[in-house]
Amino acid sequence: MEDDQVTGWQGALRTGLGERVSLVPGDRSAHARDEGTPLTWVPGAVVYARSEGDVLETLAVARDWRVPVTPWGAGTSLEGAALPVPGAISLDLSGMDAVGEPDPVGFTVTVGPGVRRLALNRRLRPHGLFFPVDPGADASLGGMAATNASGTTTVRYGGMRENVAALRVALADGRVLTLGSAARKSSSGYALKQLFIGSEGTLGVITSLTLRLHPLPPATASVQLAFGDVEGAVTASVTLRGLGLTPERLEFVDAATVAAVNCHRARHDPEAPTLWAEVAGRDRADLDAQLALLREAASLHGGTPVGEARTPEAQSELWAARHGVYDALRAAWPGHATRIGDVCVPLSALAGTVAVAQELLEEHGLTAPLVGHIGDGNLHLLMHAHPDDVDTWTRIDHVLHALAAHAVAVGGTCTGEHGVGLRKRTYLRSEHGDALDVMREVKAMLDPLNFLNPGKVVGDPALLPAFPVSDHDAVGDTAADWRPDVPARP
Amino acid sequence: MEDDQVTGWQGALRTGLGERVSLVPGDRSAHARDEGTPLTWVPGAVVYARSEGDVLETLAVARDWRVPVTPWGAGTSLEGAALPVPGAISLDLSGMDAVGEPDPVGFTVTVGPGVRRLALNRRLRPHGLFFPVDPGADASLGGMAATNASGTTTVRYGGMRENVAALRVALADGRVLTLGSAARKSSSGYALKQLFIGSEGTLGVITSLTLRLHPLPPATASVQLAFGDVEGAVTASVTLRGLGLTPERLEFVDAATVAAVNCHRARHDPEAPTLWAEVAGRDRADLDAQLALLREAASLHGGTPVGEARTPEAQSELWAARHGVYDALRAAWPGHATRIGDVCVPLSALAGTVAVAQELLEEHGLTAPLVGHIGDGNLHLLMHAHPDDVDTWTRIDHVLHALAAHAVAVGGTCTGEHGVGLRKRTYLRSEHGDALDVMREVKAMLDPLNFLNPGKVVGDPALLPAFPVSDHDAVGDTAADWRPDVPARP
Repeated sequence: MEDDQVTGWQGALRTGLGERVSLVPGDRSAHARDEGTPLTWVPGAVVYARSEGDVLETLAVARDWRVPVTPWGAGTSLEGAALPVPGAISLDLSGMDAVGEPDPVGFTVTVGPGVRRLALNRRLRPHGLFFPVDPGADASLGGMAATNASGTTTVRYGGMRENVAALRVALADGRVLTLGSAARKSSSGYALKQLFIGSEGTLGVITSLTLRLHPLPPATASVQLAFGDVEGAVTASVTLRGLGLTPERLEFVDAATVAAVNCHRARHDPEAPTLWAEVAGRDRADLDAQLALLREAASLHGGTPVGEARTPEAQSELWAARHGVYDALRAAWPGHATRIGDVCVPLSALAGTVAVAQELLEEHGLTAPLVGHIGDGNLHLLMHAHPDDVDTWTRIDHVLHALAAHAVAVGGTCTGEHGVGLRKRTYLRSEHGDALDVMREVKAMLDPLNFLNPGKVVGDPALLPAFPVSDHDAVGDTAADWRPDVPARP
Repeated sequence: MEDDQVTGWQGALRTGLGERVSLVPGDRSAHARDEGTPLTWVPGAVVYARSEGDVLETLAVARDWRVPVTPWGAGTSLEGAALPVPGAISLDLSGMDAVGEPDPVGFTVTVGPGVRRLALNRRLRPHGLFFPVDPGADASLGGMAATNASGTTTVRYGGMRENVAALRVALADGRVLTLGSAARKSSSGYALKQLFIGSEGTLGVITSLTLRLHPLPPATASVQLAFGDVEGAVTASVTLRGLGLTPERLEFVDAATVAAVNCHRARHDPEAPTLWAEVAGRDRADLDAQLALLREAASLHGGTPVGEARTPEAQSELWAARHGVYDALRAAWPGHATRIGDVCVPLSALAGTVAVAQELLEEHGLTAPLVGHIGDGNLHLLMHAHPDDVDTWTRIDHVLHALAAHAVAVGGTCTGEHGVGLRKRTYLRSEHGDALDVMREVKAMLDPLNFLNPGKVVGDPALLPAFPVSDHDAVGDTAADWRPDVPARP
């Protein structure tokens, strides 16, 4: 498309940002889906920002023309946070990928929002440091902060909320805030940094992050423990905590899932509720002592060690059944799409919630791997069905809905680590009560024109602003297709 | 005072709250000062709240009559957060002191805001649990959350921000929010809980807290290490972190202070920059290994062990020089008043900041103990002078001002753990830039009438609302004495 053909807000973007604005169908389609939401919403333009100035220029045009802007990091979100409003702007931050020099004394590094997790850790490794938050996907750090991501190591290191020291954020009105600092603590003023962590681009656009780093542990070891029942596995994980033992990772997989992985990988792991724990230590003696405590805690609750490993290779092999769940699912059900349930409950409600999940699956005639970051009380159901199998998707919706409602009812949360996006909004009232209204007041205060990732988190898609859809918006859906509460199947 | 004599807003409080409202001079004077601010501002009434309903009733009267309300926990604040507006309402929450049954599986307990730290830990001890945040003073949990308190154990467990699972907060408009949950993590909605932690009663009144608990460590040991210079002590504390060793406490005291304590307690500790570390372990072997690492890290940077202890009694004795700083100061300077400086800097700026503090003291001809929660980069200067010694207080002001400005200039914060109150407001613009304006927008959104602890944190005392001072306000100062930026000396 020639520049002189581009008019309206797309023309204004092109004027300010030149070739960093793409209207090419391929680029737009590449920003139309995330990894978990069965919707295809094609943006009207993609801005490939290279600097904070590009972000501000994009926001200025979007503000002037009232065009929604949705930040895009790596597109690995699961609940729709990164999906653009159809026909509007996808603000791709992947080019803002500078990694500063790590500070080995202050244990921090400053990165652009587009830096990805695995690339960052490759850069940090020679310094003996790492960034611990591990959501599984190779997500961008900006996206991870925006959704308050966490994962397998959160039991030991916390999630993004605990590991972002400072943020720079561009606001809807063009101000840029620096929030937090490299100091390890502060009681100075309101915690605005925390307000932006988890706000999914609805309050501002993250343009830089200062992250807390940790030393690579001198030595690690892993153990796999099979239990007689789910309750035993859960109780053992609580006992561990009571003993003051904090593993690097503490993961749970149910019996049916171990069986599925056995089948897929020709393994012979006991088909029982299973825990995996990785511990870090100073030396072999320290690891030995921790593994002995782990075995002891397990045996108190009917758990038996079925494998133990110390070398990286052996640990990798030991964890195969945990890490192989998704692959086994894909292999067992070729052509199926997946949808991952994600709830987090108080540890005292964890065993009961596992039971509820299993009952719900049985009641609706479904099978799905149940895995959990069990030390945090965080459970995932890996649902799957053929994209066209409307009946099964309806039953999946029932199960995931009932599970989220149960999590809230027992004092937990509808989303442990995947964010709210489009699909968890329906639970916010029951989870937060009147606080949802205050969240909406915060949104209205910081984005009165409602053009920052509108409709997400606390937003109501029925209240989306009208904006001019350009003549050049030839491909994809339009804003009229915005039906997030009745998602089309893929 | 007879009930029928009470009119105006005090009468309205009495109508709603009966005997829980005190207009007695003694009660009012007891709420006129905190532990660190040389100001006496006598409230016009004290409400002794016993329930969330009492808090709501107080807020309703205050809202109707536009009378400022300042929550009061234990009165241990150091920067003026708990000082009432002269003639207005002090809302004493110390009677809301219920402690719920600890949840030994979820590691939580729910308490009223008036529960004090030491009482809570006495209740938790038989359960093998404790609440780790230790600001030194026997503060109330509500006050600790309101100022985002931390302290000696923060290096290991974090501060209030990391250890409050959920809050109930009464808003200016009478809504009551439940924020957070007993689930260990969530990515559901905006982090309003974090916004209220550290807001010092300016955004709402905390009526209940759910706290994260930790298992009492099976065994602990402590070591005292003397260094050739400050830099060695600081670098050793960084080396420890690099080795993956996280002590329960890691404290620093400068050489002059060790000398002062020697003198006061007839001790013979080496008069050198000194670190104390307490480590927790599974058993004796684990403690031995950690102590060996500690000694090794110290010796790399010119540090020598001067004492080691394992029993509670011996550890108490070992820590005496650290814990005796304040007493030694009081003994050496009878009749002096104190003022504690509190800054926190990135660890990479810590040694330099200690040097700056020492130079400032020398330049202004002052002596003051310098102590630090060194693992967090948090430094305190314990300034002292006779209350009437205007010249010395002026020099103290210069030193503390220069130190706070330095901390902000090197990327740190003007207040590590004491909050903003009245006296740190002057640094918020340089520390937060435009974010200060957004903080003020948050304040205006949640408290448009500006009656919740007005003038504190982000507030401007010049913009204090006028309110009717009752005829019964016979004792104490009036709102006209509100001159926080030019504080009177005690």
